[in-house]
Amino acid sequence: MTAAQALPTSATAIARAVAVGDLSAREVAVAALDRIATEDSRIGAFTDVTAARALAEAEAVDRARAAGEPLGPLAGVPFAVKNLFDLAGLPTRAGSRINRDHPPAATDAALVARMTRAGAVTLGGLNMGEYAYDFTGENAHDGPSRNPHDPTRMSGGSSGGCGAAIAAGFAPLALGSDTNGSIRVPSALCGVFGLKPTYGRLTRAGAFPFCDSLDHLGPFARSAGDLALCYDALQAADGLDAAGTDAAWAGRPPEPTLPELAKGVEGLRVAVAGGYFRQGATAQALDAVDRVARALSAGREVEYPDAQRARAAAFLITNAESAAFHLDRLRSRAAEFDPDTRDRFLAGAMLPAVWLAKAQRFRRWHHDRALELFAGVDLILAPCTPCAAPRLGQKTMMLNGAEVAVRPNLGLYTQPVSFIGLPVAAVPVWGDADAPNPLPVGVQIIAAPWREDLCLRAAAAVEAMGVARAPMASLPAARPDALTP
Amino acid sequence: MTAAQALPTSATAIARAVAVGDLSAREVAVAALDRIATEDSRIGAFTDVTAARALAEAEAVDRARAAGEPLGPLAGVPFAVKNLFDLAGLPTRAGSRINRDHPPAATDAALVARMTRAGAVTLGGLNMGEYAYDFTGENAHDGPSRNPHDPTRMSGGSSGGCGAAIAAGFAPLALGSDTNGSIRVPSALCGVFGLKPTYGRLTRAGAFPFCDSLDHLGPFARSAGDLALCYDALQAADGLDAAGTDAAWAGRPPEPTLPELAKGVEGLRVAVAGGYFRQGATAQALDAVDRVARALSAGREVEYPDAQRARAAAFLITNAESAAFHLDRLRSRAAEFDPDTRDRFLAGAMLPAVWLAKAQRFRRWHHDRALELFAGVDLILAPCTPCAAPRLGQKTMMLNGAEVAVRPNLGLYTQPVSFIGLPVAAVPVWGDADAPNPLPVGVQIIAAPWREDLCLRAAAAVEAMGVARAPMASLPAARPDALTP
Repeated sequence: MTAAQALPTSATAIARAVAVGDLSAREVAVAALDRIATEDSRIGAFTDVTAARALAEAEAVDRARAAGEPLGPLAGVPFAVKNLFDLAGLPTRAGSRINRDHPPAATDAALVARMTRAGAVTLGGLNMGEYAYDFTGENAHDGPSRNPHDPTRMSGGSSGGCGAAIAAGFAPLALGSDTNGSIRVPSALCGVFGLKPTYGRLTRAGAFPFCDSLDHLGPFARSAGDLALCYDALQAADGLDAAGTDAAWAGRPPEPTLPELAKGVEGLRVAVAGGYFRQGATAQALDAVDRVARALSAGREVEYPDAQRARAAAFLITNAESAAFHLDRLRSRAAEFDPDTRDRFLAGAMLPAVWLAKAQRFRRWHHDRALELFAGVDLILAPCTPCAAPRLGQKTMMLNGAEVAVRPNLGLYTQPVSFIGLPVAAVPVWGDADAPNPLPVGVQIIAAPWREDLCLRAAAAVEAMGVARAPMASLPAARPDALTP
Repeated sequence: MTAAQALPTSATAIARAVAVGDLSAREVAVAALDRIATEDSRIGAFTDVTAARALAEAEAVDRARAAGEPLGPLAGVPFAVKNLFDLAGLPTRAGSRINRDHPPAATDAALVARMTRAGAVTLGGLNMGEYAYDFTGENAHDGPSRNPHDPTRMSGGSSGGCGAAIAAGFAPLALGSDTNGSIRVPSALCGVFGLKPTYGRLTRAGAFPFCDSLDHLGPFARSAGDLALCYDALQAADGLDAAGTDAAWAGRPPEPTLPELAKGVEGLRVAVAGGYFRQGATAQALDAVDRVARALSAGREVEYPDAQRARAAAFLITNAESAAFHLDRLRSRAAEFDPDTRDRFLAGAMLPAVWLAKAQRFRRWHHDRALELFAGVDLILAPCTPCAAPRLGQKTMMLNGAEVAVRPNLGLYTQPVSFIGLPVAAVPVWGDADAPNPLPVGVQIIAAPWREDLCLRAAAAVEAMGVARAPMASLPAARPDALTP
């Protein structure tokens, strides 16, 4: 057993051990950096490792403890961020080649600053799909972030590096973004826990945008408890995210979720999303939903209204808003985009405005209809993805007897939910003993706006029952070259 | 002196006289209907006169009084509405030919219902520009609503019938809509008072839309006191206007403004909008602002940020959203539109989505910058229109030495303000004794969101000082045929 393997691996355990002095933050940081240095060449989770910064932050935590100063709730806990978060001193690449010419960020993104104020230790920036327009975790410039449970397979995107880093045990916590599913899809494919909070709940200040009206930021972890611990450190308005956060907060205090987990799920009314969300999925994905449903005593099925149109409208809004944001870059530096990403943005640049206006109008209508569901239920369950991780480079797959494109269909079940900003915990589910699947899938636990507490309580409950779990991957010994499909 | 002329003409005086029994509601209604029947053929303010309804409502008020029942604040006060408000039993034409094929409205629009619950008496529907896409008050199907102060001239649009009906003395109150200036422009051109409340403040349920994200409803009157009396009867959320009103109210109680008027303007910090709002206007329009500024002791000039871009973005959003709303009608019944209106909608149908997305993004930014102005001032003054009423049919005019199109430029100063939903009172200003202008112009008194009370206090103050006034027009004796330009 190496020194690294002997250390605690959960954020909760690390913070506790550092707080009581069983472990120094520096030891933890060194072990994490060692593991990344040894193993990440086979995975491709990191694009930037901020080793000097991590050691300095860890040493500051250790000095603070030695001086008897109070420590934050994440003291000594290593974390990393999707490389669209500003990290002071690095250009914020957002998965692109073009952005590497940007000047280095002057300050950290607001959520990074909250993590470090809470004592967390910054390991670096994580691989992602170019400009977040991705569900695969592949990147034309940096190579794919590979699935630690099978490095010939996708990590899922666009926060592929987050899912991979957590599953590989490089860090107990990561921050990613989710516009149409980019936290939930890699959580599912990499078998980890992820939280996409309510739209507007976590400030996006200092994060490179994809699509303002749909972008959410949120944490990844290997347990529901770690997820809640991290999420609680991230809450609060900062007056900096005009398009999203600040109106939503409107003077509301943070609402810590960690103390809520002990409440369990007794009395919560849980339903399974029917119709659209039962069509086009593999048996494994539906079985995972059913197992979580049984664990949570889901009593009924609900019909999420017009999910197909919601997904179509989410496509249009994403396409148009993101093309508007990238228009100047498309005009001046088209050749430097990943060709696949560029083609998506170019399509967005040619959409008619009336489609966007209609999609936005539908979104308001749909939002009100969908919220009506929560008069009768507290939580709704749906698959994260229709299938487990496809192979890297795989372009099509069979779903329901039809050959469909892999990339867009990985978001089949996540897009209609983020479309109206509902909070979702993604929980990882593995095969039964009698129906073993070598790879996990994920289940979305969906609540009404601002009820992240309910998502996390249910996630903790299914984890406690052993239905959801996020084991660290046994990293392969083979060289990455041998793994290219 | 006829019987009609002997009756009180303000809403406040009518309600008081009816309440104390000096006048019956029926007498008032009969006089109003008589005046409309006699005079409106020369003006074209009404498209639908609901005489039987008016008499029935008036008689119900009189019966209630006779029975000793409490009367509403508008008991016996006649009013009329732009014909985009649902009136039970009539198709809601919204200025169009196409909508006349719609089934009659089953119920009144929410604001009409509030007026009648307050005791007001419904005279009918008022002429307007087709589908509200207008600043002139002309209508290809119904003929123009003429300016009562000079029937060869425009009433202004799109709520031209409202301005005309108030100036002509057909009713003391009218309800109109304002997307880019359609309450403020006819208020200015017809020399009456108008209130465009904060976006989201008055429910739009039962009003035919033009552009959801910019549509406002509001009252017209011949005094600031009547305007406040009417506005107070219209406030409160109803849970029916998802796109606009309800989130804005969020449990807030109505805030009556009428009792506020007595406070005067002592201590209010008033500024004049400089830059953009001092360019391109006639001397008359600028002089009117200056007179109101002196009356309100305006102490400084402020620069409304990026007004030119705000207007451009308002054009784009209006064009795209309204084209999306009318797309099916454009496809199936293009020949039945006013050709000018149709061409505007067709242009909107061809806009690229990225322009709309960029305009919306700018709107959020601009909103926050504009609100910063109100840290230093309570009210901002600007012209309503660059000029007094143009002649009917006039297509271009000279402004600042350049020939410009009449229609779009009537909204030059109103568009940037409604773009971000600020509340505005439009007050009518006439020539001095030594600089007589035969026609009025208007001044916008602009406040921070939800501060209609301040707009109305200032409007009442400048009215009390004689700087703003809304005399009833002396209707011409000539036949309308002779008046066609």
